Amino acid sequence: MALTLEQLNTAAGAVALLEGIYEHSPWIAQQALARRPFASLAQLKHAMATVVREATPDKQLALIRAHPELAGKAMVAKTLTAESAGEQSAAGLTQCTPEEFARIQQLNAAYNAKFGFPFILAVRGPRGSGLARARIIAAFERRLDNHPDFERAEALRNIHRIAELRLNDRFGHEPELGNLLWDWHEDLAQHSDPGFSQNGQLTVTYLTDAHRACAMAISGRMRECGFDEVEIDAVGNVVGRYHPVGPSTGSGRTGKTLLTGSHYDTVRNAGRYDGRLGIFTPMACVHALSRSGERLPFGIEVVAFSEEEGQRYRANFLASSALTGHFDAAWLDQKDADGVAMADAMRHAGLPGSMQAVAALRRDPSRYLGFVEVHIEQGPVLNELDLPLGIVTSINGSVRFTCEVTGMASHAGTTPMNRRRDAAAAVAELALYVEQRAARDGDSVGTIGMLSVPAGSVNVVPGRCQFSLDLRAPNDAQRDALVNDVLAELQAICARRGVRHTAEQNMRAAAAPSAPDWQQRWERAVETLGVPLYRMPSGAGHDAMKLHLVMPQAMLFVRGENAGISHNPLESTTSDDMQLAADAFLALLRQLAEEQSA
Amino acid sequence: MALTLEQLNTAAGAVALLEGIYEHSPWIAQQALARRPFASLAQLKHAMATVVREATPDKQLALIRAHPELAGKAMVAKTLTAESAGEQSAAGLTQCTPEEFARIQQLNAAYNAKFGFPFILAVRGPRGSGLARARIIAAFERRLDNHPDFERAEALRNIHRIAELRLNDRFGHEPELGNLLWDWHEDLAQHSDPGFSQNGQLTVTYLTDAHRACAMAISGRMRECGFDEVEIDAVGNVVGRYHPVGPSTGSGRTGKTLLTGSHYDTVRNAGRYDGRLGIFTPMACVHALSRSGERLPFGIEVVAFSEEEGQRYRANFLASSALTGHFDAAWLDQKDADGVAMADAMRHAGLPGSMQAVAALRRDPSRYLGFVEVHIEQGPVLNELDLPLGIVTSINGSVRFTCEVTGMASHAGTTPMNRRRDAAAAVAELALYVEQRAARDGDSVGTIGMLSVPAGSVNVVPGRCQFSLDLRAPNDAQRDALVNDVLAELQAICARRGVRHTAEQNMRAAAAPSAPDWQQRWERAVETLGVPLYRMPSGAGHDAMKLHLVMPQAMLFVRGENAGISHNPLESTTSDDMQLAADAFLALLRQLAEEQSA
Repeated sequence: MALTLEQLNTAAGAVALLEGIYEHSPWIAQQALARRPFASLAQLKHAMATVVREATPDKQLALIRAHPELAGKAMVAKTLTAESAGEQSAAGLTQCTPEEFARIQQLNAAYNAKFGFPFILAVRGPRGSGLARARIIAAFERRLDNHPDFERAEALRNIHRIAELRLNDRFGHEPELGNLLWDWHEDLAQHSDPGFSQNGQLTVTYLTDAHRACAMAISGRMRECGFDEVEIDAVGNVVGRYHPVGPSTGSGRTGKTLLTGSHYDTVRNAGRYDGRLGIFTPMACVHALSRSGERLPFGIEVVAFSEEEGQRYRANFLASSALTGHFDAAWLDQKDADGVAMADAMRHAGLPGSMQAVAALRRDPSRYLGFVEVHIEQGPVLNELDLPLGIVTSINGSVRFTCEVTGMASHAGTTPMNRRRDAAAAVAELALYVEQRAARDGDSVGTIGMLSVPAGSVNVVPGRCQFSLDLRAPNDAQRDALVNDVLAELQAICARRGVRHTAEQNMRAAAAPSAPDWQQRWERAVETLGVPLYRMPSGAGHDAMKLHLVMPQAMLFVRGENAGISHNPLESTTSDDMQLAADAFLALLRQLAEEQSA
Repeated sequence: MALTLEQLNTAAGAVALLEGIYEHSPWIAQQALARRPFASLAQLKHAMATVVREATPDKQLALIRAHPELAGKAMVAKTLTAESAGEQSAAGLTQCTPEEFARIQQLNAAYNAKFGFPFILAVRGPRGSGLARARIIAAFERRLDNHPDFERAEALRNIHRIAELRLNDRFGHEPELGNLLWDWHEDLAQHSDPGFSQNGQLTVTYLTDAHRACAMAISGRMRECGFDEVEIDAVGNVVGRYHPVGPSTGSGRTGKTLLTGSHYDTVRNAGRYDGRLGIFTPMACVHALSRSGERLPFGIEVVAFSEEEGQRYRANFLASSALTGHFDAAWLDQKDADGVAMADAMRHAGLPGSMQAVAALRRDPSRYLGFVEVHIEQGPVLNELDLPLGIVTSINGSVRFTCEVTGMASHAGTTPMNRRRDAAAAVAELALYVEQRAARDGDSVGTIGMLSVPAGSVNVVPGRCQFSLDLRAPNDAQRDALVNDVLAELQAICARRGVRHTAEQNMRAAAAPSAPDWQQRWERAVETLGVPLYRMPSGAGHDAMKLHLVMPQAMLFVRGENAGISHNPLESTTSDDMQLAADAFLALLRQLAEEQSA
C-alpha cells in the first residue's frame, strides 16, 4: 500500500515512514519533516535534499560513506540494505562478467584512494529503469577524473536521485508524462546523420535524411497525441495545432493561439534533449488534454523548428526566422560544405525551395498570445542547486571577438623581466580582468575560450598571443558596458606593456528579456508544483530570441545532469524532471485558460 | 688629415670638429664635450650617445626628424648633407631599380604615417661597408611592424651607428681586428646543412658535412693565425695552442695555460655569431700576437667546441663535457632522428668513435689558469643601454617544467562566473605571478613560453590549459626559492579555483657564478678601453657552465643588434663592437702576463 502525503503530513512517527530513503541517515528525514506540511512530493524531495545541502561537510561525508560500494563486498556478502540490493541487482550488477567485476573492483580501489569515499551512482538511472553495466563502468571511469570538491557534490546528487526513486516507489508515484517524454527522446535519437552514428553519437543537421526522418517521426507522434492539424512546412518545421473550444474549423475560430516549440536539429555529436525537450513537453501536454477530451479557450501551436544550430548552413535560426519574417532570401543560395545550395537541399527534401513559399510562413503576431519555450538548461546552475526548474529572465545579449596581441619574441633566459614585451602576459592580465569585470555584474559572463601562443617555445618570451573573447549579459546596455570596459582595459594593458593588439568583432546578438507577464506565468506555474522559484538568465541563444522580435516570450529551464553538460552525448535529464516540466506547462495552460475565460 | 683625440681634448672650438657627426644637431657635440678629456674613441662615442639618451623626447624626435628619408626627396633634390649623400650612395640607393624606388617610397609613406618620423637605417651596416638594397628594404619592412616606442629607440640606435662610422672616418680609425672577425664569421657561414641552406639560412649540427667543413675551415684559420699546434680531437673540437715564452716543446714547458673558446655548431636557422665569436676573438688576438712575434708567460689554448646546442643528439654540451670528464659513455649509443648512433657519426667523420678516445680528452685542471669565454649577449640589454660590452656575473641556473591545469570545460554562455573551473584563468593568474615574482629578484627571469587551450572554442570555458615554465636565477639558492614560490603559488591558485595541475620537471641546470678574480680581470680589461662597466647575469647556458665544474671561469658579453635577437638569422653585431671585444681580450691577456711575471 503506497504512502500518501496526507499520511506523512499528519503521522506522529513520520520518520519511520521515510526510513531507508537516505541510506542509514534518519537525521535527514527528521530535519526535513520539521518543514511539514508538504504540498507535493517534489516539495518533500527538495526539503530532504536541502537538509543534506545545509549539513556540515562531516555529515555529508558520513552520508556518502553510509553507501555500499558498487558490486562490492557488501553485495557479495549480501549485507546490503534491501533497497541497495534491489537497485544493484536491477542494474545487473549481480550478473557482471568476471572482467566487469574485476574492472569495478579496480575502479572502486582507485576511486577510494583518490576521494576517500565510495563511488555512488544512481544505478536506476534517469528513467528509473536501470543503467546498462557498460554505462555504469563508463560513468565510473569518467568521474574518477573529477576534482574532489566536484565529485563530492556529484556523489550527493546521486544520493538525492537514489532517494527520489525510493520516494517514488514509497508513494506509488510514477512520472507518466516524464517517462513518455524520456522514451520519445530516446526514440527520436535513433536518427543520426551517417558518419556520426557510431558509438551512439547523435548528429542531425538541416535536411539530411536523418533530419527528414526526425520530421516524419515528430509529425507521426503529433498525430498520435491528438493534434488537430499536423504539417511539415516549407522550411521543414513540423507544426502541430490543437484547436480551442468552439467550432473546430473555418472562420468561426476567433480565439488567439499560444505559440510554443523548439528545434529538432542538433550540433555534431550532440545530446538528446537540447531543443527537443521544448517540442515534446507541449506535445505531452496536448497528449494529456486530448486523452481527457479537454479543449482550452485558445489554440496551441507547437512548432518543431527544423534549424537552430547553424551546422550545415551558416544561416542559423533560419526556421524561427521564417515565422518572424526575418528569413534572408540570400540564404537559399548558401552552399553547405559539399556545395549543395539550401534551395536545392529543400527541393531534395520535397519542400518548394522558393522564397515565396518561405515568406508565406510568416505569422501574424496579432493572432498569437505569445511564445513560450521549454529548454534543458545547458548549464550547471540548477544541477548544483538541486533545483529541477528555472525561470528564464532574459536570453543574454552577446558579442564575440577574435583577438591577437603582438609583443616581441625574445630569449627567455636573456631578456630581463623589465625589458619584455610578453604578448601572453598581456593576455593573462586581460583574462583576469574579464573574469573580475563579468563577475562584478553578477549575471554577466565573459570567457577567453581560445588561447594560444603560436609556435611558442619553452625558452622564448611570447611574441604573439591569439585569443577569443565572448561577452554576454541579460540586457544590451549591460553587455555593451561590459564590452566597453573589457576593450578599454585591453587598450590600457597593451599601452602600459608596449604591445599592440587587434580585436575583430565576429558576432553581436541583442538580448531578449522575458516579457514580464509571461515570466510571471511560468513563476506561478512552478509555484503550484511546490518547487522553489529560481530566476536566471539564459546564457545560450534559443529560438525564443527570434520570436522575441515579434511577440512576448518567456522560457522555462529544466535541470541537466552531469553538471548541465550540453552539446555532448552526456547531456541528460531525468523523467522526474521532465514530468515537472510537463506539469509546469500544464499549469501555465490552465492559468491562461482562466485568464481567457475571465 | 685625421683628427686626433689629443686635438679634440684640447681644442677651443671643438664643437666644430664634431660637426655633422649627429645630423644637424650640434647640441650633442656641445654637451658631450663637457665630459672631456676622452681616453678613447669608444669613450667619446659613448659620451655622445649618452647625451642623446638623456635628452628630452622632443629633442630625440627632432634629432630623428633631422635625418633625410631613404632615397627620398632630399636625395633626389641633392639637398642631403655630404655625409648622408655619401652613405646613401655607397649603399647603392642612388642606383635603385624603379621597382625598388617605388617600394621604398611606399614604405617611407607607411612608416611616416605610423611613426611620425622618417625611417633611419645605418645603411653602411655592421661592417661599415654598406648594406645591399634588398637587405635595406627587408629591414624597412620588418621595422614597420615594430611597436612605436621600440622603433623610436631603434631609430636612435641607428643614428648612433651612423655617428660611430662618421667618427671612425673623422678620426681615421679602422677596426682592423673587428673587420677581420666580421669577415671570418661571414666566411664560416657559407657552410650549412643541406635542406637548411636556402635563403641564407644557417644550420650546422653535430658532425654533418657542413659541420666537418667548419672544423676544417677553423683549423686552417688557426694555422694562418700562427697557432703552434692545431688539431681536431676525438669529439670534433678544433683545438689551437699558442705556446708561452720559453722552450716551445717537450717537458721544458712548465707554465700554465689559459683555456678559452666557444662552440661552432648552431641551432636550426641560426645567427652567425652565437658561439663562433668566442672562438674567433681569441684567434684574432693570437693572430695579433703572432704577427708581432709576441709570446706570453702562459700558453693559450683555444677550443672550438663541436657541440653545444643539442640539435642532432640530446647530449648537449658533449664537447665541453669531454674536456671536463663529464662525457656520458651512453651518449655514444644515442641515435639521431635518422637512426644514426653518435659513435657511427663520429667514425663517419673520421673520428675514433670510442669512449677511450673521448676519455683521453679530459684536461687536468691543475695545468690551466682558468677558462674565459666571449659570447654575443643574445639579449636586448646592452643594445638598449648603448653599451658595447657586458661583464657576466654568473650563468643563471635554470629549471624547466611542462605543466597542465585541468578544470572543467563548460558552456561559456550558461556557466556563471562563480561556477567555473576555468583552466586558462588559473594559468593566467600564475603567469602574472611568475612575472612579478621573478621581477622582484631583479635578476631572475621566469617565462611561460608555451601556452595553449587544447581544442579551445570561443564559447567553451577552457577545461584544460597546457603551458611551459622556465625559471632562471644567477645562483641556485635564488633559483630554487623562485621555483618553490612559483610551484607553491600554482598549488594555491589551483586549490582556490578547484582545478588540478601537473608540473613535470624537464631540466635542471646549476648556476655557474663567475670566479671573482676572473670577473675582475674582465672588468679591468673593459675599463682600459674607456667603455663603461656593466655587470649582468647570463640568461642562456654556455660552454663555460661545463668548464665551471673543474676550473674558474668568467665570460664577456658583446652587444647584439636588433634587440639582441639570437637563434635567428637577424643576429648581428658590428665590427666596431667585435674590435672592442678583441681589445678587451688582449687587455686581459696583458693583465695575466703582468700577474704571471710579477
